[in-house]
Amino acid sequence: MAKKVLIVYAHESPTSFNAAAKDAAVAVLTAQGCTVEVSDLYAMKFKAAATTEDITGGVKDAENFCYAKEIKLASEEGRLADDIKKEQEKLKEADLVIFQFPMYWSSVPAIMKGWMDRVLGFAYAQEKRYSEGIFKDKKAMLSFTTDCPESVYSDTGINGDINVTLWPLQNGILNYCGFQVFAPQIFWDPAAGSPESRSSMLEGWRTRLQNLCGEAPVYFAPLDYFDKKKGFLKPEVKEKYASRECGLTVGIHMGKPLPANSQTKAGV
Amino acid sequence: MAKKVLIVYAHESPTSFNAAAKDAAVAVLTAQGCTVEVSDLYAMKFKAAATTEDITGGVKDAENFCYAKEIKLASEEGRLADDIKKEQEKLKEADLVIFQFPMYWSSVPAIMKGWMDRVLGFAYAQEKRYSEGIFKDKKAMLSFTTDCPESVYSDTGINGDINVTLWPLQNGILNYCGFQVFAPQIFWDPAAGSPESRSSMLEGWRTRLQNLCGEAPVYFAPLDYFDKKKGFLKPEVKEKYASRECGLTVGIHMGKPLPANSQTKAGV
Repeated sequence: MAKKVLIVYAHESPTSFNAAAKDAAVAVLTAQGCTVEVSDLYAMKFKAAATTEDITGGVKDAENFCYAKEIKLASEEGRLADDIKKEQEKLKEADLVIFQFPMYWSSVPAIMKGWMDRVLGFAYAQEKRYSEGIFKDKKAMLSFTTDCPESVYSDTGINGDINVTLWPLQNGILNYCGFQVFAPQIFWDPAAGSPESRSSMLEGWRTRLQNLCGEAPVYFAPLDYFDKKKGFLKPEVKEKYASRECGLTVGIHMGKPLPANSQTKAGV
Repeated sequence: MAKKVLIVYAHESPTSFNAAAKDAAVAVLTAQGCTVEVSDLYAMKFKAAATTEDITGGVKDAENFCYAKEIKLASEEGRLADDIKKEQEKLKEADLVIFQFPMYWSSVPAIMKGWMDRVLGFAYAQEKRYSEGIFKDKKAMLSFTTDCPESVYSDTGINGDINVTLWPLQNGILNYCGFQVFAPQIFWDPAAGSPESRSSMLEGWRTRLQNLCGEAPVYFAPLDYFDKKKGFLKPEVKEKYASRECGLTVGIHMGKPLPANSQTKAGV
């Protein structure tokens, strides 16, 4: 089982907890026989802004410039900037992509959002999305640090349910592209703890990595639950779930309570 | 009523619908006697990545480099990079901040996330947050375009409830900083419509802008609903809302159905 793994990593400091988490993943996965590639975005000075410079040979419709459309076309025609091409090569090879980052403002740091905007841009395709998405044979996961404890990210906590916070990233980006999404690895406020608690967090991560590929992914509604043209739940699916107490997923909640921990636990 | 408005704008093309929406806001608000400042992020080639270069005179703790901590300290000591300082000056003056952008991957484009990471970084303060946040006397709103119709962003739509998608941006960033958040201006798939439908969308925006300052903001739970130390709902608040059919907000849903349209309509 020689898997290829891409770690997209966004922390400037090699002495950070994020660096240690990335290094732990490299070590454990390599020891398992995986080939691990790291895109160290700050070290690469990765360009974050999605601009016309990302398309070589000029844009097709400058008057109505639409980045998503132009990037898709440029991808088909091999007219993407070199740094995007290089990342897409790594992505193409990868069976698993791990995003390692400190959470900034309830999301990924801008430099990582830039990687998503620019490198994944071509995968934004309404005809091939969600369970039929371009990367449906690949796995992806978020691994991140917070600066607050888990309790404040609950459904009665001041920051609100972490499952809601994760929905746009895990569903709107990863699931949209077709990735099977592993439950996130969340390191709750490592900076507040002792060196021992940080070691223990890393040890838990190492243990999890050893069996990661055997994990079930997070549950998302399959594409065939939806009317292809109109884009909403088919009547028979609505009926099937009508008597269930909770919604299908966080976003497709059908006016019911959200399924508990559905973005943070496997297969819920 | 001479208000100061800052429009943070992220589209490269001056012929785009986003540019037209920005221009409409400048024209209407100026005609009302407001002073309008525009930060045109692409034209400014605004640096998106949050890096140690944002702090002049060296970081305090390079060994455990934490951007949020360093940027706050640097802000207090006047040691921020010039481009951040300039944006913060505009922000300080503003009574209202409008973010105008095309939605990229369920969020703001990376260049705008960079503005948030770098310029708002100092406002990430656990002691002054949410309804006691640094910008509690200011208003803010998101104004953005999508490339799909409203129906697919419903609680039975393939993209899921737009209220969930907006929560990390409107609660996690704007409300966290204290901003009173106006309901978002969402331009549903302007590119798919006719020139007439686009004109009509812009006309609706102009009309809304004329009475914007009289609008009630979106509802968020006030800070005093939470135990200050532990950060979750006080028992008496839980009890008060125990018999209500829906949760308090999207994120603080208390295991109940989400309040309908609570991130997209005023004062829900």
